[in-house]
Amino acid sequence: MRQTWAPSLGAVYLGNRRTRFRVWAPLAQKVDVHLLAPDNRIVALAPEEWGYFAGVIDGVEPGSLYVYRLDGQKERPDPASRFQPEGVHGPSQVVSRHYEWSEGCWFGLPLQAYVVYELHVGTFTARGTFGAIVPHLDELKELGVTAIELMPVSQFPGPRNWGYDGVFPFAVQNSYGRPEGLKGLVNACHQRGLAVILDVVYNHLGPEGNYLWDYGPYFTDRYKTPWGSAVNFDGPHSDHVRRYFIENALYWLTEFHVDALRLDATHAILDFSAGTFLEELAAVVEQQREQLDRRVYLIAESDRNDARLIRLPELGGYGLDAQWSDDFHHVLHTLLTGESIGYYQDYVGPDSRPRVEYLAKVYKEGYLYTGQYSRFRQHRHGTSPAGVPASRFVVCTQNHDQVGNRMLGERLSQLVSFEDLKLAAGVLLLSPFVPLIFMGEEYGETAPFLYFVSHSDPQLVEAVRRGRRQEFAAFHTKGEPPDPQAEETFVRSRLNHQLRHKGGHAVLRRLYGELLRIRREHPALATLSKEQMEVISYEKEKVLYVHRWARGGDAVSVFNFGDQLVPLNLPIPPGEWEQRVASAEFRTDQDEALQPGAQPSKHISEGEVALELPAKAFVLLMSERHG
Amino acid sequence: MRQTWAPSLGAVYLGNRRTRFRVWAPLAQKVDVHLLAPDNRIVALAPEEWGYFAGVIDGVEPGSLYVYRLDGQKERPDPASRFQPEGVHGPSQVVSRHYEWSEGCWFGLPLQAYVVYELHVGTFTARGTFGAIVPHLDELKELGVTAIELMPVSQFPGPRNWGYDGVFPFAVQNSYGRPEGLKGLVNACHQRGLAVILDVVYNHLGPEGNYLWDYGPYFTDRYKTPWGSAVNFDGPHSDHVRRYFIENALYWLTEFHVDALRLDATHAILDFSAGTFLEELAAVVEQQREQLDRRVYLIAESDRNDARLIRLPELGGYGLDAQWSDDFHHVLHTLLTGESIGYYQDYVGPDSRPRVEYLAKVYKEGYLYTGQYSRFRQHRHGTSPAGVPASRFVVCTQNHDQVGNRMLGERLSQLVSFEDLKLAAGVLLLSPFVPLIFMGEEYGETAPFLYFVSHSDPQLVEAVRRGRRQEFAAFHTKGEPPDPQAEETFVRSRLNHQLRHKGGHAVLRRLYGELLRIRREHPALATLSKEQMEVISYEKEKVLYVHRWARGGDAVSVFNFGDQLVPLNLPIPPGEWEQRVASAEFRTDQDEALQPGAQPSKHISEGEVALELPAKAFVLLMSERHG
Repeated sequence: MRQTWAPSLGAVYLGNRRTRFRVWAPLAQKVDVHLLAPDNRIVALAPEEWGYFAGVIDGVEPGSLYVYRLDGQKERPDPASRFQPEGVHGPSQVVSRHYEWSEGCWFGLPLQAYVVYELHVGTFTARGTFGAIVPHLDELKELGVTAIELMPVSQFPGPRNWGYDGVFPFAVQNSYGRPEGLKGLVNACHQRGLAVILDVVYNHLGPEGNYLWDYGPYFTDRYKTPWGSAVNFDGPHSDHVRRYFIENALYWLTEFHVDALRLDATHAILDFSAGTFLEELAAVVEQQREQLDRRVYLIAESDRNDARLIRLPELGGYGLDAQWSDDFHHVLHTLLTGESIGYYQDYVGPDSRPRVEYLAKVYKEGYLYTGQYSRFRQHRHGTSPAGVPASRFVVCTQNHDQVGNRMLGERLSQLVSFEDLKLAAGVLLLSPFVPLIFMGEEYGETAPFLYFVSHSDPQLVEAVRRGRRQEFAAFHTKGEPPDPQAEETFVRSRLNHQLRHKGGHAVLRRLYGELLRIRREHPALATLSKEQMEVISYEKEKVLYVHRWARGGDAVSVFNFGDQLVPLNLPIPPGEWEQRVASAEFRTDQDEALQPGAQPSKHISEGEVALELPAKAFVLLMSERHG
Repeated sequence: MRQTWAPSLGAVYLGNRRTRFRVWAPLAQKVDVHLLAPDNRIVALAPEEWGYFAGVIDGVEPGSLYVYRLDGQKERPDPASRFQPEGVHGPSQVVSRHYEWSEGCWFGLPLQAYVVYELHVGTFTARGTFGAIVPHLDELKELGVTAIELMPVSQFPGPRNWGYDGVFPFAVQNSYGRPEGLKGLVNACHQRGLAVILDVVYNHLGPEGNYLWDYGPYFTDRYKTPWGSAVNFDGPHSDHVRRYFIENALYWLTEFHVDALRLDATHAILDFSAGTFLEELAAVVEQQREQLDRRVYLIAESDRNDARLIRLPELGGYGLDAQWSDDFHHVLHTLLTGESIGYYQDYVGPDSRPRVEYLAKVYKEGYLYTGQYSRFRQHRHGTSPAGVPASRFVVCTQNHDQVGNRMLGERLSQLVSFEDLKLAAGVLLLSPFVPLIFMGEEYGETAPFLYFVSHSDPQLVEAVRRGRRQEFAAFHTKGEPPDPQAEETFVRSRLNHQLRHKGGHAVLRRLYGELLRIRREHPALATLSKEQMEVISYEKEKVLYVHRWARGGDAVSVFNFGDQLVPLNLPIPPGEWEQRVASAEFRTDQDEALQPGAQPSKHISEGEVALELPAKAFVLLMSERHG
């Protein structure tokens, strides 16, 4: 019998009305469990090594409410609470681990097959619950999505939050549903062949309802993060802080059958150890892979452009499976919007104008910054990710941060033309990387995605408002940001799903679906490889030429970012070519008459072919010929 | 013609009475050179990109004194000053780069051949100068030393300092001599086939005479070091801070023909970049290797036990050539002294008693801590250095820190018996690592090596005294530490070279010489390899058995740390064996009669041989047989 991972922290229901409690409280001399409901009693835990306290208590069933009593005085919820029915300041609840899984034979998906759909549980549907997502899964599946990525679901203060203010890493947000609700969502995904990625935040805890300070040295003042105290990953007692977060990762992967974790802001996991927390986490997950019988992945958010993160341990890497490439987004964003302020200054030329060659570099390598000087950071930035497989990069044209951190939360659909949206879809879905779609992007959702919170501490609320105002004042943005605390700000951020059937929205969605279908079916696109690819940028014409190939065929995508219809001689290899997609043909008017799209020769015998490409358009040509 | 590296910062004499000045002063709007002597004049420098100011000034020859005038007001010495004839607060001096080298064909030594002799210029001789070292080189060479390592020589306040309070990284300490003095010492070393290692401090600057704050953002408050502000290696403008220190490294390697740099406390070089300063430094030195036509090395001090530091870049390492292994020292120190307080608690067993198995592990791997829990640090510590060649570890039984950071600066000779000193010599010199001898160790110098400074700021002096007292109070050490500021403390730390001819001192020195000679001549000892080695610890008997082999022969060393003469059956391989060294035979009495030393059979045919080993002694057996 293989040993399956089992949780050691928190309240674990053992059956037969017995529950085991264990908590790390090295600052306490004495820890009791104060059972609040159904009966009210106090039971002492026994001290264990390293400041843990534990005990099995009879007569405690799922549903029981409890807090820990530290040194006979402070009563605090469980740092590893599985559920906080009354929110961050209330008691913790004992939860059953049992769930009737009906996933069938689910082994996960290879990373190469991931097409990620990032969603925020609270605003994806009007109900804002795990359960309310399920009816949408079929349409996502039909679109070509293969994995949904949930923004963090750990308990945060109040009912409205992006999730990055979570303070109970093991408890699902009570306004989203119960733990069974999340399991039900995962189960429903797996039944449909969809993987589930969960966004987890290990670099900080939220500013309200964080009671970990009372338990132990979870935090350190040796380093700072933009969001408060840094987690203590390398100082005294850090082994147990690591254990807490590593157990959290295994908890989601094992008990919730989650397929991958998106590790938020790993650059803010500040750790000078020889063996860093991230390496340890990756090694533990690697050990668990066999037990899990399922493909599982760790995907980092990182702004360091440090290829070491995603290299294999035998090559000195941390062994994480993939990372987000912000560079991809930023370069594309400047090409589409012309924006060049803030961090976008690093993604335009010295003349503040966008450059197609930068996109070409990201397409080829995965990063734009591989060691050159960053004007925004004021120092050289990044390392070369040469040799790192393309499937280790997750790319997007929009995500919660890139949309939501704008003062007005505008999606790309509010910033650029319809033609640009189609062009962006092509750049995203024909890239050799793992694409991520931000909820609603596929049909050009018009609702903003704003920054919203629902803290209960008035001072904190005011501080968040002030911080938000200052942030945008620094960027000389005009006007006032919407009030993050206002319920309206949250409500405005909800998707309008019905849009997807209408006019241009439906056309855009059809393009996403068509591109995903071809990507899935054609080896030259399904094979994520930096090596089986040639990329050329035509700076004057603002055109990007991408030739990808694999056993079974070739694909050539040509993207025109310029405002002009350009005739270009392209080095398309000889062979029989078919135009599979011309973005200009995806029109908003009812008759969908053909525009003068690209019309390449069917047969190309010489090395170069002239192509007339409309402004802000792309074409995809395919050939069965093996390149 | 290959391009040789040339300095870009500081005052560089171009010949023909012309000198080029360049300084990084991004905080200044305007920088002048104020020439003080021989003539007094002010010449403006021209601004360059990135906050540099530069200019070539006619009529300035070596010997000229100058300061920079920042914004027409503050006058400050040059951060890249080549010499400070009047100390840290005085003007800088233009120095000629010319030196009549007469090294002959000096290509440096392979790291495997390094036998390092660490010395402090100020106390190695009564005169305390570079020049005064030269007459001692022949005796070091004759002893078997192949490289001298100079404690830092950069200009520090006053005439007395270990060197870690240096504030002019490019200027040699004025009380040690002039730049030509150091060149002369290097030249004299190379003439004798001795390499020169220079200790450089890139993790902080000293507390007095540091004028870098006035020039630019050399420091950061994002991190802390035990010795003051951390150097800004990863924040805004850090490219230029890096350039300053990288140019410093090349300056010593190129202009002074130094063979290796010992990088002080690299764990305090706090840098979260994707491409760290240390990696960049290693890469730049790697690029320079061809130009230098000489084997050069970067050797890190590090307390992180991070094997990544010394792995090759292609294996994800930083590409440094070697590092000090403190673990080696600490384990051996506990075995010899029984000490178990402070950081030594990590090097004894849970019963606070020394363990031979720990030494066995260090012998096998290079580190003791490869990820296990450290009681002193209160978290797991280190990574496995598996696969890292043995020649990448520098080990010692004493060094300036381990001796000098004791309250009374006692050397091992003051702490343990004569037999123990010989045993320590055997463990050191028969190890598969690069050995480092601390000046005077080889003859059991009796002078302490105390902590001394000569600051001019009374408040700083008092702070150092207080810090020193508090440090030892925390360790419950009785008594008062010697006054670091007192000249006597410095004078007491001087070597008594004449001791080496006397009695037991001479015998000890003879043992060092004999071991070094055999080590050099015998392939099994000259080949530094973790793989061609078998190590067994006998915990009850307190015996360490080490079998090393190479093409050409085998060597077996057996070390007895116990208080008893032990008979032991050892797995010495069959063959013809010769006892080459028995430490017990190195006696202090004049007739040097043999003690009952180890007397193994000449011919060993069976797998185990009984050996009677006196207390606190070792034997070295050798065989021509190829193991």
